[in-house]
Amino acid sequence: MSTTPRTDDPRAIRSRSAVLDAARRLLQQEGPAAVTHLRVAAEAGVGRATVYRHWPDPAALLSEAMSQVPLPFFTDYDHDLPGWLTEQLRRLADELTVPAVRQVTATLVQTAQWDPEARTQLQRWLQAITRRLHHALSQAASNGEPTPHADASDVTTQLLAPIVFRAIFEGEPVSDQLLHQAVAAVLAQR
Amino acid sequence: MSTTPRTDDPRAIRSRSAVLDAARRLLQQEGPAAVTHLRVAAEAGVGRATVYRHWPDPAALLSEAMSQVPLPFFTDYDHDLPGWLTEQLRRLADELTVPAVRQVTATLVQTAQWDPEARTQLQRWLQAITRRLHHALSQAASNGEPTPHADASDVTTQLLAPIVFRAIFEGEPVSDQLLHQAVAAVLAQR
Repeated sequence: MSTTPRTDDPRAIRSRSAVLDAARRLLQQEGPAAVTHLRVAAEAGVGRATVYRHWPDPAALLSEAMSQVPLPFFTDYDHDLPGWLTEQLRRLADELTVPAVRQVTATLVQTAQWDPEARTQLQRWLQAITRRLHHALSQAASNGEPTPHADASDVTTQLLAPIVFRAIFEGEPVSDQLLHQAVAAVLAQR
Repeated sequence: MSTTPRTDDPRAIRSRSAVLDAARRLLQQEGPAAVTHLRVAAEAGVGRATVYRHWPDPAALLSEAMSQVPLPFFTDYDHDLPGWLTEQLRRLADELTVPAVRQVTATLVQTAQWDPEARTQLQRWLQAITRRLHHALSQAASNGEPTPHADASDVTTQLLAPIVFRAIFEGEPVSDQLLHQAVAAVLAQR
């Protein structure tokens, strides 16, 4: 997905790799919105011009980093299932306010309609989220918290769909109301 | 969105226009899945080769027709709100089993992230569906049926999002279970 011309110059290869590593670290630690030219340059210890030379388009850099590291959503469940779900969905919704994040997501989804590689990557993300949600729900159940009786992949769909649809299809910000309704609808399935 | 070369040949202009009219009629009467080369050729009274010459890609023909006519979803509410919503969503889900329909939708959504014209078209569709749902809910309320107390555009999102997400993001068929959960979640908002 990168627009970088091929090069055999070892210095260019090293700086490209440093930039990509920095983008991956930011992505994994802070989420897609952190992957800007400015932040990546600082994290990689190179000038912005270097980042710009390898990836003129920030969405292409984000897309390449996103194909290689897991996204930091729905990790580290502790307690309070409704609160945690709401907080995680708010985080996802906030990431989707960044145009580059919406663009990369929409492009991956569009490409997945005909390209098996994009389909596989999208499935990997969704399966990772489903696994994490399943883990959180099991934790909550073993804490004695009330948990929904629903198919794990249906839970993923019910939680993510309204957020992603509002942000990417409707192009509007996700209200707290919509987010609470999504959590309430899932937790009501007893 | 069409790939047709420009031409000043009046016969080509007429046959192109006959094909597009036929595609629009099929779309409006039967939905996107009906807009195939075979059906459009029969409806327009031309050979398949003619349709193929103007629109080698069926998705481009569908896309052009979809930009001009309203989609046949959520019209004609009569009674039984849960039954009607379930039936309309099943219809939408069935349309989304057709690859060309998913492709056109995903492409429009992807394009809408940067192109104001695509964004406007997407908004027009969603607003039309919101108006129709609002109309159906008012009808149901005046019939004395129980209706949800929710923001009209939230109802659209809550109903459409799981269907569209499952079909286009996850690339999987929409189960009756997922569909019933979406209707139940909306109707539970009293």
